[in-house]
Amino acid sequence: MTSESMELRREIAQGEARLTSDPLVAGAVHPCLDLMRSRRQTSPKRLVDPGPSEKQIHALFEAAAQAPDHGRIRPWRFVRVGAAARPDLGEAFASALRERDALAGPTQLRDARDKALRSPFLALAIARLDDAHAEIPAAERCVSLGCALQNMLLGAHALGYGAGLVSGQALHSRALLDLFGIEAGELAVCFIAVGTVSQDKPTRARPAPRDFVSSL
Amino acid sequence: MTSESMELRREIAQGEARLTSDPLVAGAVHPCLDLMRSRRQTSPKRLVDPGPSEKQIHALFEAAAQAPDHGRIRPWRFVRVGAAARPDLGEAFASALRERDALAGPTQLRDARDKALRSPFLALAIARLDDAHAEIPAAERCVSLGCALQNMLLGAHALGYGAGLVSGQALHSRALLDLFGIEAGELAVCFIAVGTVSQDKPTRARPAPRDFVSSL
Repeated sequence: MTSESMELRREIAQGEARLTSDPLVAGAVHPCLDLMRSRRQTSPKRLVDPGPSEKQIHALFEAAAQAPDHGRIRPWRFVRVGAAARPDLGEAFASALRERDALAGPTQLRDARDKALRSPFLALAIARLDDAHAEIPAAERCVSLGCALQNMLLGAHALGYGAGLVSGQALHSRALLDLFGIEAGELAVCFIAVGTVSQDKPTRARPAPRDFVSSL
Repeated sequence: MTSESMELRREIAQGEARLTSDPLVAGAVHPCLDLMRSRRQTSPKRLVDPGPSEKQIHALFEAAAQAPDHGRIRPWRFVRVGAAARPDLGEAFASALRERDALAGPTQLRDARDKALRSPFLALAIARLDDAHAEIPAAERCVSLGCALQNMLLGAHALGYGAGLVSGQALHSRALLDLFGIEAGELAVCFIAVGTVSQDKPTRARPAPRDFVSSL
């Protein structure tokens, strides 16, 4: 625990911090901030079985549904990639590689296919950037998706799993667009992967507020 | 408490859910998901004094710093609007209105100025969409900002405050760009406002996972 978080605890104990009347929320003052701080990105190659149960997956998507959504347009959707669909995803990754590099060899193609087998839970996050509701700009829609994803990442961490976001050039390939039925005006932004961490890594150093906050 | 969350609690009590070895994190399994569920958008006009203390504001920005950041490029920054700068912000809002509507009358201009006085804590969230690090697309950068904002919103709620995101046409006005020193390649996305809720509102109905999740 840092001396700063100890100080914040003391402050709250002394009653300077205001708590809500909901004891669950009040009890969460620290755990939720601690949860954010102890969360880390886990690459899908380090996410193994067991993955979240169906009930837990439902809870993660319910957490996503709590994201701010200006205009209530729900500017995103998710497509899960179940176990049976992993070979199709592998073929799409291989096709995507061939689209980028016609000379890709068998080892590279096998590596591309193998990526589809990682992480017990995998879903594609798709932003809806179509012209409907033009008053809500694309940046706000992607911010809403980010809020949804952060809730899922924190939820997975709260349930004891590792999780990570992954993107890459394959996301915008013809093969991926076809497999996932991405429509005009939609954008495949990243995969979210959730599973048991096979090999833990330390949390990375985070920027200090002074690095990204200024004042008028 | 919904029957679903009671069921999830039971499931966890029965040991199906896996907890981390960190007792703080383990204790947060429920409070953090409950915190997400009980959070709501609060408009700045319903956010009054007292606002968060300087220490709490620091904790909120530390929460923002925990956002996923592909490539570690920190694709966003914040500018706080302190009490002394509110009249300048009010003038910028009035100028922005005049940019859009040269015929705006005194009442409309006064209303525009008054908006700058709302909410004890106010900061502008700015996405950095410049050409540096072109391998990280704009959508991913805005997703990272969304993750940072969601951490701040949850953190504010955990500390007992109300909070909300606000945007509008004024964000892209010449007056705002000048006041905040928004550079080429940067985009003012929204304000985040935090304060004491003067008049509570019920949480809105959220979409059900079936409305936004499909499977391959």
